[in-house]
Amino acid sequence: MKKRGRVFLVGAGPGDPELMTLKAHRLLGQAHAVVYDRLVSPEILSLAPASARMIPVGKAPYFHPVPQQRINRILIDLALEGLTVVRLKGGDPYIFGRGSEEAGELHAAGIPVETVPGITAAQGAAAASGVPLTHRGMATSVRYVTGHCQAGRPLDLDWAGMVDPETTLVIYMGVANIAEITTRLIEHGLSPTMPVMAVANATTPREQRLVSCIEHIADEIDRSHLAGPVLFIVGEVVSLYRGCPERVLERLIISPDRIRAYA
Amino acid sequence: MKKRGRVFLVGAGPGDPELMTLKAHRLLGQAHAVVYDRLVSPEILSLAPASARMIPVGKAPYFHPVPQQRINRILIDLALEGLTVVRLKGGDPYIFGRGSEEAGELHAAGIPVETVPGITAAQGAAAASGVPLTHRGMATSVRYVTGHCQAGRPLDLDWAGMVDPETTLVIYMGVANIAEITTRLIEHGLSPTMPVMAVANATTPREQRLVSCIEHIADEIDRSHLAGPVLFIVGEVVSLYRGCPERVLERLIISPDRIRAYA
Repeated sequence: MKKRGRVFLVGAGPGDPELMTLKAHRLLGQAHAVVYDRLVSPEILSLAPASARMIPVGKAPYFHPVPQQRINRILIDLALEGLTVVRLKGGDPYIFGRGSEEAGELHAAGIPVETVPGITAAQGAAAASGVPLTHRGMATSVRYVTGHCQAGRPLDLDWAGMVDPETTLVIYMGVANIAEITTRLIEHGLSPTMPVMAVANATTPREQRLVSCIEHIADEIDRSHLAGPVLFIVGEVVSLYRGCPERVLERLIISPDRIRAYA
Repeated sequence: MKKRGRVFLVGAGPGDPELMTLKAHRLLGQAHAVVYDRLVSPEILSLAPASARMIPVGKAPYFHPVPQQRINRILIDLALEGLTVVRLKGGDPYIFGRGSEEAGELHAAGIPVETVPGITAAQGAAAASGVPLTHRGMATSVRYVTGHCQAGRPLDLDWAGMVDPETTLVIYMGVANIAEITTRLIEHGLSPTMPVMAVANATTPREQRLVSCIEHIADEIDRSHLAGPVLFIVGEVVSLYRGCPERVLERLIISPDRIRAYA
């Protein structure tokens, strides 16, 4: 009888290959097959053995080249071949990563599955910018929400619960809906001057930041040239951004060269 | 003139040394001095060079052997000696880690400081247990709160905002106040049968879990022998715990041996 394979659901972290965990790095180096998302960088993929089967199943917003059910099937089939499979996802598999759906399918198919957490984009963006996610006397809580809704459905978020001034709000996948999100947050009581930092490609050489406030961020994102996946950090903690005097907001886009100038 | 040192604020992750980032591992191996918290394990500390100065500044609840101002001073003095200093904290320095207070003091003293994120306990506990922090159709958001209040102050949390049934709630440092926290959450509308998982020493050989519901968790924690820092994950996602049929809660404590039996 053939040896049964197994699947590791592995978080690749926010972008910088050095922000992978030691465990993710070890497992990637031992993989027979790597099934990976669009957000995983070539530098990280190059850490897999030259002999490994590399299978892209990238998802972009509004463009799903490989449906989720097909991804599940690929993982099960590779494991049934007896392979050690690394399912590599940007960030953390259990934070907006659909890792738990894949784990459930694998479990139901009798395939051993283990999950390895990864640094999520919010943590990477926070550490790189000096904007903490919590700060004593300023934020006693941090909340990650998804700003992306399922196709054809309205954006149905817990607006009233999202406007606590002592909670840092992090919006993932929100760039397409940022005008609606900011309008609704202000309607529900968030101060229009609440600071916001938008970060694209956090922790990579292509990182860009835009520091503004909740009232203006949607317009400024429109006029900006931020490219790639954008994360929004909303809260008083953004006032700790270096070069941004407390409560005095600068509206600026900071490209990697200017980030170096600030450091 | 003496070469100026620098400080790296480094997240050591949730406990398992393999869940450190590659960057944390590299910096720890190059440190001249390591200033570390109580929650950082001996296995991780052993990765520092034998020649490094090892300086414990551990904090336990209600017991602060080294006050924060003194810690800031130690970091500044070591850097002024020209040393490469690793300030090592459990989890992530910017999530309930006071890293931003230390970064601010170092910045004000003209000391170069860089922050390296770490896997936070919630991510470690989630990956190890199979309980995701978000799950499509079940949790569109995850929120980390601290259940520890400043000495002499009442627990003043955003109770109304914390009872969204589609947000996974993670309570750090809440074990001393769990009875009050659960009472207030139920008063503000959280279902008494909402599942909860308490996890002590996540991702270490001493990990223990208790799966229950919000109505009973405080009593059961009292009767349990959970030791060490405890994290609570509250939400429908706990129903995905393996061995826990959907919506049918088991009340059990799972020690590492039994975890292996479940896997």
